[in-house]
Amino acid sequence: MTEPNGTGADIPEGFPASPREHLSSPTTRTVLRIQHRMLTAAREYLSAQGFVEMLPPIIGPVTDPGARGAKQIDIDYYGHRYKLMTSAILYKQASLLAFDKIFYVAPNVRLEPLETSSTGRHLAEFHQIDVEVAGASRDDILQVVEDLVRGVVRRVVDEMPDELESLGRDTGAFTELLARPFERRTHAAAVQDLHDIGHDQSPDAEIDWQAEVKLSRKVSHPFFVTDYPKGSRGFYDRESRTVPGQLCNFDLIAPEGYGELCSGSEREHEYGQIVARMRETGENPAKYGWYLQLVRDGIPASAGFGLGLERLTRYITGLGAVWQANAYPKVPGVKSP
Amino acid sequence: MTEPNGTGADIPEGFPASPREHLSSPTTRTVLRIQHRMLTAAREYLSAQGFVEMLPPIIGPVTDPGARGAKQIDIDYYGHRYKLMTSAILYKQASLLAFDKIFYVAPNVRLEPLETSSTGRHLAEFHQIDVEVAGASRDDILQVVEDLVRGVVRRVVDEMPDELESLGRDTGAFTELLARPFERRTHAAAVQDLHDIGHDQSPDAEIDWQAEVKLSRKVSHPFFVTDYPKGSRGFYDRESRTVPGQLCNFDLIAPEGYGELCSGSEREHEYGQIVARMRETGENPAKYGWYLQLVRDGIPASAGFGLGLERLTRYITGLGAVWQANAYPKVPGVKSP
Repeated sequence: MTEPNGTGADIPEGFPASPREHLSSPTTRTVLRIQHRMLTAAREYLSAQGFVEMLPPIIGPVTDPGARGAKQIDIDYYGHRYKLMTSAILYKQASLLAFDKIFYVAPNVRLEPLETSSTGRHLAEFHQIDVEVAGASRDDILQVVEDLVRGVVRRVVDEMPDELESLGRDTGAFTELLARPFERRTHAAAVQDLHDIGHDQSPDAEIDWQAEVKLSRKVSHPFFVTDYPKGSRGFYDRESRTVPGQLCNFDLIAPEGYGELCSGSEREHEYGQIVARMRETGENPAKYGWYLQLVRDGIPASAGFGLGLERLTRYITGLGAVWQANAYPKVPGVKSP
Repeated sequence: MTEPNGTGADIPEGFPASPREHLSSPTTRTVLRIQHRMLTAAREYLSAQGFVEMLPPIIGPVTDPGARGAKQIDIDYYGHRYKLMTSAILYKQASLLAFDKIFYVAPNVRLEPLETSSTGRHLAEFHQIDVEVAGASRDDILQVVEDLVRGVVRRVVDEMPDELESLGRDTGAFTELLARPFERRTHAAAVQDLHDIGHDQSPDAEIDWQAEVKLSRKVSHPFFVTDYPKGSRGFYDRESRTVPGQLCNFDLIAPEGYGELCSGSEREHEYGQIVARMRETGENPAKYGWYLQLVRDGIPASAGFGLGLERLTRYITGLGAVWQANAYPKVPGVKSP
């Protein structure tokens, strides 16, 4: 079905014709109640671990350039050209000047390409649980991701089994997740796995969402992909000091075909390295005034991640598409309330 | 001091020269820790009362026109002209199609006039605890505001007295607030009070922030101002069916000169009334496509409010200005990170 608004985007199958249809649907109501509980569980877990929740800005002079293929939105802020946040990464690093462990529940806006309207995985407006820890290594932060995801899943499985059942989601899907550590494989190993199933994957590039879904379909337990090659990610993913060209980063991939839930990394925090990485990735350092000034004067080493809230909700509730996990979904290119 | 960015706005006294200065200040750290606890208390209180927290959109085809004197920000959303939310009011009414009691912690962006840069009360980007209850009357919702504010204050007073003391805030300031009901006066009575102290106030108009501060300075206990005249507020504040020209709405004014914390009302929900009120307030109904369609097909009667988070934080912590209650403050007209 071609959407009627002249942008050329397809409206996904089952997409509601009106906010009324979506908001009054028993599925939406159950999903949003579960999402509320998920956020409560995440906040309680992180607060108990000493994290301070902060409120991220939604506009600023510059934002994350690392949203591959998506466009940023410009605004006029008192005559200055500002942007809507595509992610909170620059502010997460800055916020460590206030506290060693911080998190946000951050709205992001990314004008994803029209062809992503029917993937079931992309929204032009979505939320991330954004975590950053001063002094943490990648191994430290993988443990935070794992404990956070497990805690959220356990809360929903324990407290809302009837709601999951009403959505047709078998709580048995989470037995492995709740019982044992998430698995890990390197990017190089994931490339080999993809070659083994006949998927053409460059060893020097990001793994696209289609390939992530293929890997995800083959497993029943979440796994991390680590050590992406330089050039596949933003300037803030730290390059290994021992293996040049390899980034100290990761994605978390859900099982059962749900694909990527989360991206994170140790962060680059050295001024010279950041400027060099900006230049390598085609970014003009002159645009990053306040951020580079802060980095030049010194910011803490850190590691962190952004966990996609609608994607995690979709996985936990077993939905067909992420738009079902948002009250006012913005599918790329499709006009919305 | 005139700010150096050519907009003509003054930089407020004491405003930090850099994010580092602000974020590493002991005052900022203490204030943000208290704000985190305030939000935790608000979420726990509202969730225990059966409210569902939802995530509001930050962009859409139309937004609240009722932000007096402030400009909206336009964006290009796949060739459609969208706006950043100045408030979540339209979505709060719509969300009652999913749940009878909802709340958001909503970011809002309003390009306030340059002359508000040094009021200590205005931010171009700020947050509201946004509450809406289906079937509620104004009296019902006043009780929710009062219980919510008292619960948040009690939590901070009980759990963070040392932090308040370190900010120079005497917890005795809240004795009355914690002990007895908030007072109420009508708009007409507030106009008379202003006349009595020699302030020129029209009986047909909104009470501006300077006058609110004058009223606020004379008291040591919060009070509601109710029954504003039609024409002073947005189309969604319901007009009394028994006293034409009088709105079923309110503001909450903090004591000690801290001024307005919160605005709310019973909502207009009848299609014909809303269209008439839009026309009376100079709004073109044709701009409100999805919202008016929803109203035409029926939305619940409701009442609700938006409680300014930075303003409430300022009051509780006794700060001189709201920018001190935001990690990345955007003072109107002043360039920011």
